Amino acid sequence: MNVLKGYFPILDWGARYTGKTFTNDIIVALIVTMMLIPQSLAYAIVAGLPPEIGLYASMAPLIMYAVFGSSRALAVGPVAVASLMTAAAAGQLASQGTPEYLGAAVALAMVSGLLLIAMGFLKLGFLANFLSHPVISGFITASGIQIAAGQLGPVLGIHAEGESFLDIAISLWRSIGHIHIVTAAVGIGSLIFLFWVRSGLKPLLARFGLGGKASDIIVKVGPVVAIIATILIVWSFTLADSGVAIVGNVPGGLPKLAVPPLDLSLWLKILVPALLISIVGYVESISVALTLAAKKRQRVDPDQELIALGASNVGSAISGGFPVTGGFARSVVNFEAGAETPAAGAFTAVGIALTTLFLTPLLYFLPKATLAATIIVAVLSLVDLGALKRIYAYSRTDFAAMAATILFTLVEGVEAGLLAGVGLSIFLHLYSTSKPHVAVVGQIPGTMNFRNLTRHTVVTSPEIVSLRVDASLYFPNARFIEDYINQAVAANPSVRHLILECPAVNTIDASALESLEAINLRLKDGGITFHLSEVKGPIMDRLKRSHFLEELTGKVHLTHYDAVSSINPELARRTLEAQRV
Amino acid sequence: MNVLKGYFPILDWGARYTGKTFTNDIIVALIVTMMLIPQSLAYAIVAGLPPEIGLYASMAPLIMYAVFGSSRALAVGPVAVASLMTAAAAGQLASQGTPEYLGAAVALAMVSGLLLIAMGFLKLGFLANFLSHPVISGFITASGIQIAAGQLGPVLGIHAEGESFLDIAISLWRSIGHIHIVTAAVGIGSLIFLFWVRSGLKPLLARFGLGGKASDIIVKVGPVVAIIATILIVWSFTLADSGVAIVGNVPGGLPKLAVPPLDLSLWLKILVPALLISIVGYVESISVALTLAAKKRQRVDPDQELIALGASNVGSAISGGFPVTGGFARSVVNFEAGAETPAAGAFTAVGIALTTLFLTPLLYFLPKATLAATIIVAVLSLVDLGALKRIYAYSRTDFAAMAATILFTLVEGVEAGLLAGVGLSIFLHLYSTSKPHVAVVGQIPGTMNFRNLTRHTVVTSPEIVSLRVDASLYFPNARFIEDYINQAVAANPSVRHLILECPAVNTIDASALESLEAINLRLKDGGITFHLSEVKGPIMDRLKRSHFLEELTGKVHLTHYDAVSSINPELARRTLEAQRV
Repeated sequence: MNVLKGYFPILDWGARYTGKTFTNDIIVALIVTMMLIPQSLAYAIVAGLPPEIGLYASMAPLIMYAVFGSSRALAVGPVAVASLMTAAAAGQLASQGTPEYLGAAVALAMVSGLLLIAMGFLKLGFLANFLSHPVISGFITASGIQIAAGQLGPVLGIHAEGESFLDIAISLWRSIGHIHIVTAAVGIGSLIFLFWVRSGLKPLLARFGLGGKASDIIVKVGPVVAIIATILIVWSFTLADSGVAIVGNVPGGLPKLAVPPLDLSLWLKILVPALLISIVGYVESISVALTLAAKKRQRVDPDQELIALGASNVGSAISGGFPVTGGFARSVVNFEAGAETPAAGAFTAVGIALTTLFLTPLLYFLPKATLAATIIVAVLSLVDLGALKRIYAYSRTDFAAMAATILFTLVEGVEAGLLAGVGLSIFLHLYSTSKPHVAVVGQIPGTMNFRNLTRHTVVTSPEIVSLRVDASLYFPNARFIEDYINQAVAANPSVRHLILECPAVNTIDASALESLEAINLRLKDGGITFHLSEVKGPIMDRLKRSHFLEELTGKVHLTHYDAVSSINPELARRTLEAQRV
Repeated sequence: MNVLKGYFPILDWGARYTGKTFTNDIIVALIVTMMLIPQSLAYAIVAGLPPEIGLYASMAPLIMYAVFGSSRALAVGPVAVASLMTAAAAGQLASQGTPEYLGAAVALAMVSGLLLIAMGFLKLGFLANFLSHPVISGFITASGIQIAAGQLGPVLGIHAEGESFLDIAISLWRSIGHIHIVTAAVGIGSLIFLFWVRSGLKPLLARFGLGGKASDIIVKVGPVVAIIATILIVWSFTLADSGVAIVGNVPGGLPKLAVPPLDLSLWLKILVPALLISIVGYVESISVALTLAAKKRQRVDPDQELIALGASNVGSAISGGFPVTGGFARSVVNFEAGAETPAAGAFTAVGIALTTLFLTPLLYFLPKATLAATIIVAVLSLVDLGALKRIYAYSRTDFAAMAATILFTLVEGVEAGLLAGVGLSIFLHLYSTSKPHVAVVGQIPGTMNFRNLTRHTVVTSPEIVSLRVDASLYFPNARFIEDYINQAVAANPSVRHLILECPAVNTIDASALESLEAINLRLKDGGITFHLSEVKGPIMDRLKRSHFLEELTGKVHLTHYDAVSSINPELARRTLEAQRV
């Protein structure tokens, strides 16, 4: 039963569901539905899909997450970055507006969902670790900039598109003379209103005595107001006849459920983008889930979240939708409105379904410029260029990874940017671990302790070189240690013993073992015995499974003092008894 | 002057060169020349090139290394693995025997040389660390198997070729019925003789009172005897007329020096194989150099070795040769014959030049089967399948990387094998560091020490969770720590304080900082203060450059005892004063 509850968290909270929780969840669902309608339409457009596909992707995934999700407040659905990645991947296979393009987007959701489920069962959540924070932060910033740039065209009534920010910027620049004035009036008007809602409305509400969560929620449903207002304006003044682009006929009715065709050659083509969408989506989702769970000290199971997110994507694919994930803004609204169980999400799905069934005719006159404006306002909050400065102050390495990710994403597109960032951060990590800190140590008078001789007053013996390596020994630094010892010995002709102090060594891999063996042989050829000290238990266990300990010319000593006093007991004792400096 | 000596080690040893050293180096050169002639011819054939190209590649590189090399005994020239990699790379661009194929091989030497020189000046020697020991060992073993399989055809007088061991094996199997008996007699006869030289000759020499280095050297020049004997046999019995393939006309005379044409599109095509050849060659070369240097306590400068090896390859390219590196067998002979300076290498180059000028007509009747036999005997010493067993006993992770490298190399070819091995070993490294050891610790009665509560009898306080992370905090494990703390806190409703003990934390990167900030905020939301203890100096310096310390709800304590006693002084003091269990 507990295993079942692990895979179906609904069995846990469902059993304790009451009438009060129900009422509460219904109210939450109403609020979130209001927020989700414009978002769903907008992100479908970012993904290059017809607006109703956004509504489809906001129903089944919510229900799947309600069944499988371990977070109480996470709200899944179309989000900005995953939509952009969908557009990039599908755009490589077909042109927007073709059935092949829609098919690719649905297949992306399917493959991405299956990958996530597989990762969940195989406990492969650590794959998300490959995306370091600077890379994901840089990628989201660059994606935000690219999405916003892509929506400037519709806001101004001009045609501008491209697969990267650079392409879009060039395209915008070339058609800047053809701005459609009426469209621009609607678009820029919406932009100004939406920015005001974000920044000016809250203080105003506070002045009327409305603060805290309530005003937060009102701010979040601002886009609905913009949409209703501009629909009315376009309809009243027949602006569509003046050339303002409108959404037009949005097919009503629920999506038909169907398993997407098993097209292996298509699935193989989209495997890499689907994997990237999965991982980026998961990283976003799990960090939102952990943040919200912590506020109520609830537990989130990272592996179960992979399964839940995978099921949500499969649900999206089966209902004709595109890749979805847990979104930050909608989850926060869900949480702050007081969602107590994932049922709130299921009720939201019902809200969206009712909208799809009955309200799509009302969207006919919705100007595309307004939708574009809601997108720009939403995604600009993703852009965090200040992070570049903060990370630069903290770590040059991390800054390099972040800057490269932003640059590559803006110039070469989302996949290239993400892969460049991941590659560079792994490379820089290996580079930084390839040159660990090594200290030549000596005995502190009056103690059995050994410290770096460049920082402390210590006693050393001319026939002994004592080295402390402040790192695990493994392939990135194995050769470095060989070189270091080669040089240390070549520089000290009087040396007869070399001792490696290993308190900071957490692992020794086969490469490092090979290096230690080579060091031992080379020192032996040079007439020097090789000792180790303070080797941790698990490492000793492993070394005993090799021939190293038999071949070692010296010994493995429990403490460094033992090692030194076994070679020069007189000096070690005298130093121990000396006055501490 | 010292800087100059760094880049031109010849200025150092050249100044101290005497008549006695000269005589000595000349004798060494004679011995090494005898050994190098068959090797040069043979490895040219492995590389798919005419035999004289092997001689060309054995002159200029030796002189370049004599000028730039920091090792006293390293001998550079064509080696088995680099020759196989050359064949694989050139074979992708042109067919063997065409001028384009030769051009590609020369260009590989040129690009590889320039890459090595650049790596030397930019101190990029750490790139070689990406090849972990199991990967390089598996790769060399698989290359040895593939080269030996490839030479079985010429030994048996049948046609068998392919780009991977698998292709070659299939090809051999299909033509096994067409063995040419006379060729096979010469080939297998040579094989038996050469194996006997390796295993049976030394004991025989010892019985005649010849032991140690002298007999080692006689064994190494064994191939010359096989070559002379089979040339005489083929010539005496006119076996060429019976269909025994012979080397035929080898153009005499020195190579014409010419800078290879700067063909950027070709250079770009061969960039990756050239990089792989450079790195594999460097790894082989530097480990030979370090081993020999250690025997005389000499210093080898890894960055200077990159430059020297690069210059050797550029030298090879300019004299119409293919990629070269420091070879193990020839360097050992050079060392054991008593080479005192790199001048011995320069004199060897003169020996090869004299051979090229005057002795090539003698090679006319050299049977290809004999050359193939010398190759098989030489490369089978590279095959070390026992390493699989040793590494399996020591580490499953390293075994996986090695097995994958061997498998991919045998089935898919050298480049795929090497890249798969590097990719897998980096992946497995990141995986293993993504789940570090975390211990919940408590105070040992009677001490200020804190230890893992599952291993020791310790005292804990219900409102405090103390965790010790035995790893640096960085992107591969940042999220793991977040999850771990989320679960630890969710499982202990009484917790009010969480302390992270950091004695084993050598670094905190931007991803881990972000995680610590998220942990701090989430704990704060749950009403828990977050403390750190025993943070190392350099990490504190870096944390001070972020906002983390200002936002931290708790404090950073010098020792873990300080941390605990600042929260519950009564319990900490009582435990300290208690009897030790």
